Amino acid sequence: MIESATGLARDLLRGNRRALARLLSAVENAMPQAAEAMETLYSHAGRAHIIGITGAPGTGKSTLVSALARTYRKQGKTVGIIAVDPTSPFTGGAILGDRIRMRDLSGDSGIFIRSMATRGSLGGLAATTRDAARLMDAAGFDVIMIETVGAGQNEVAIAQLAQTTLVVDAPGMGDEVQAIKAGILEIADILVVNKADRAGAQNTVRALRLMVETGHPAIKSRWIAHHGELPESAIPVTDISLSDSPLWIPPILETVAHESKGVDDLLDQIAAHKAFLETNDPQGNLERAQLEIELLDRLRETLLQHLFAQLPAGTFEAAIQQIHDHDIAPHEAVQELMKHLQPKLIEA
Amino acid sequence: MIESATGLARDLLRGNRRALARLLSAVENAMPQAAEAMETLYSHAGRAHIIGITGAPGTGKSTLVSALARTYRKQGKTVGIIAVDPTSPFTGGAILGDRIRMRDLSGDSGIFIRSMATRGSLGGLAATTRDAARLMDAAGFDVIMIETVGAGQNEVAIAQLAQTTLVVDAPGMGDEVQAIKAGILEIADILVVNKADRAGAQNTVRALRLMVETGHPAIKSRWIAHHGELPESAIPVTDISLSDSPLWIPPILETVAHESKGVDDLLDQIAAHKAFLETNDPQGNLERAQLEIELLDRLRETLLQHLFAQLPAGTFEAAIQQIHDHDIAPHEAVQELMKHLQPKLIEA
Repeated sequence: MIESATGLARDLLRGNRRALARLLSAVENAMPQAAEAMETLYSHAGRAHIIGITGAPGTGKSTLVSALARTYRKQGKTVGIIAVDPTSPFTGGAILGDRIRMRDLSGDSGIFIRSMATRGSLGGLAATTRDAARLMDAAGFDVIMIETVGAGQNEVAIAQLAQTTLVVDAPGMGDEVQAIKAGILEIADILVVNKADRAGAQNTVRALRLMVETGHPAIKSRWIAHHGELPESAIPVTDISLSDSPLWIPPILETVAHESKGVDDLLDQIAAHKAFLETNDPQGNLERAQLEIELLDRLRETLLQHLFAQLPAGTFEAAIQQIHDHDIAPHEAVQELMKHLQPKLIEA
Repeated sequence: MIESATGLARDLLRGNRRALARLLSAVENAMPQAAEAMETLYSHAGRAHIIGITGAPGTGKSTLVSALARTYRKQGKTVGIIAVDPTSPFTGGAILGDRIRMRDLSGDSGIFIRSMATRGSLGGLAATTRDAARLMDAAGFDVIMIETVGAGQNEVAIAQLAQTTLVVDAPGMGDEVQAIKAGILEIADILVVNKADRAGAQNTVRALRLMVETGHPAIKSRWIAHHGELPESAIPVTDISLSDSPLWIPPILETVAHESKGVDDLLDQIAAHKAFLETNDPQGNLERAQLEIELLDRLRETLLQHLFAQLPAGTFEAAIQQIHDHDIAPHEAVQELMKHLQPKLIEA
C-alpha cells in the first residue's frame, strides 16, 4: 500500500519516526511524494540549527559527530544526522565504514541518523541534502548535523547547506592537504583540530592559527560576499577568539573526539556562531545566498527535463553522434538542440 | 588589440604556442572567442590520447605526471598537461604548491603545462577542461594529461574526461582513504602505488590486489555500463594482468616517481589500455557516454541563461525571498519561475 504524502507529512509532524524515514527515502529517490509532502512541511521547517562538518579523509569527522551528538543529548536537545557519502554514478555504492562508528548512538530516540548517497551531481547533493535536513527540521530536531568527506567541491557544497560549518583537521596530514586548507578556510566557521592528543597537533594548530592571523584574503572576500563591506579594523586579525568587530573569525578548537575531550568547548563555539549570525545577519543574507544556489540548481534540472520533453525522439542521440564524429563542436550542438525549445514570443 | 578567433585558431594549428595560451585563457574565462575558435578547431581534435590522473592528496600525483611527461618526451611524443585545481567560488584561488614541482619541465617546447581552476561547478570542470584538452589536441600534442586532486566527485569528473584514468595511491594513507578506494576502483583503468619504496607499500599493493581480485562489483557494473554485457568467464578475476577476456582488469603498478622508477612499465600499461579500447570499443561507446554527460551540462547552463533572459526583473529575487520566508517550498518556486518560459505550442 502506498501511503499518501499528506498522511506521511501529518505523521512526521506528530513525531512519527517511520514517516520521517519514509519521506527521507522519497526525497533521496526524487519521488513525487517528496515534493507533495514538502508543500505541507516546508512551512514547519526553519527552526533547527544546521551544522555542516567536513574535512579531509582520516581526520575523525564521524567520531566527532558522534561526540557532538552525545553532548547535545545531555543538553536535552534532539539531533538529526545526515551522513553524505561520496558515491559513484555507476553503482551508487556508499562508504559505510564510518557509519559503523555511529552505531553507539542508535537506541536513543532523540537521535536520528541517515546516510545519503550523493548520486553523481552536486546539484543532487545540494537539493537532496537540503530537503532531507528540512524534513528533520520539520520533524522537530533541534540540531541537524550534515557530515561529508571530501576535498574541494564537497566542502563548498556543505557550506552552502549549513548555517555553521566545521572544518575538521588532524595532525600528520600531508602537505597537499595543508594547501587545500587555503580553500577550506573560506568555508570554515569553526576550525577543529581533532586527534589533538597526537604528536604534531600543536604544529597543526599553529599552521591554522598563522593562516587565520595573517588575515587570509578568503576571510575578507567571504565577509564581503555575505555582508557587503568589510570593517577596516578587522584586518589584520590579531585576536582569533570572537572579535569585537562584526567579522566572524574562525576559532580553532582542539578535540579528542573518541574521549569527548574539547567537545563542550566546541558546542559553546557553535552556539556563539549561531548567536553571531542572529545578531549580525538578522535579514538572513547568508541563507538567501544559499537558497539562490539551490534554486539555480533546481531550475537547471527542471529546464533540462522540459527541453527533453520537447525534443523529437533520437535528436539528442544524433547530436552526440555528430559531436563524436567531429562534425560539429559541442556548443554548436547545444545551439541546434535549443531550437526545439519554444522561442520567446516576439511582441508585435 | 583583440586578435580574431579565426586568426588565433589558424596560428594554433601552425604550432604557435602563444595562440594556444590565448585560446586556453579564452576557454577558461568562457569568452565568445573560445566558441568561435572551437568551430574551426574541433574537427582537428580527436587524435591525442587523453589520460586522467587522480588520487588522494599526498600520493605524489604531480611528481608522477612530471615523470610520465619526461618519459613520453624520450619516446619523441609531445605532451600537454592540464592541472585542475580545486578552487572556491569565493576567491577563485588555486592550489599552486604542486605546480612548482613541475617547473623542471619548462623549457622543453614539446611540453605545454596549464593550470586551470574549476570555478565552482563540476559542469564547469567538465566543459572547460574538455575544451582545453581539445585545444591542445588540435595543436597536435600526442598525449594530454589531466591531473586533479580530490576525493569523490572530482575523480568521477576526470573519468568522464579521459580515455585512460590512472588512480594514484601511496602507502600510509588513512583507513577512510582505503574506503574511498572502493569508489575509486570504479573509475580506475590503471592503479598506481606511488612512493613504492616506502614502508607499507606492499600492504597497499595487497589491499588493491585483493579488491581487484575479489571482482569488485564496480568493475562488473562499469563494464556493463560501457559495453552492455559481462563475459561470464571474467568473474571471479584470478589474473590481474591483461585478461584474455574483453574485460579490462585494472593492473596495479608500483612507481617511485621522483626517481622515475616503474614509469616505463606504467607507460606500457597506458599504451595497452589504449590498444584495448581501440580493439574492444571501436564504436567509441565510452567517448559517446562522456560526450553525453558534457552535452547535458552545457544544455543546463544554456537553458538557465535562456530562462533568465525571459524573467521580468526582480522575479527571481522575489522567489528567493518567498522561500526564505517559508511561504513556498523551493520546488513550488521552480514551478512559478518556469511559467515565464514560453510553453510548448499546443497543436490544434
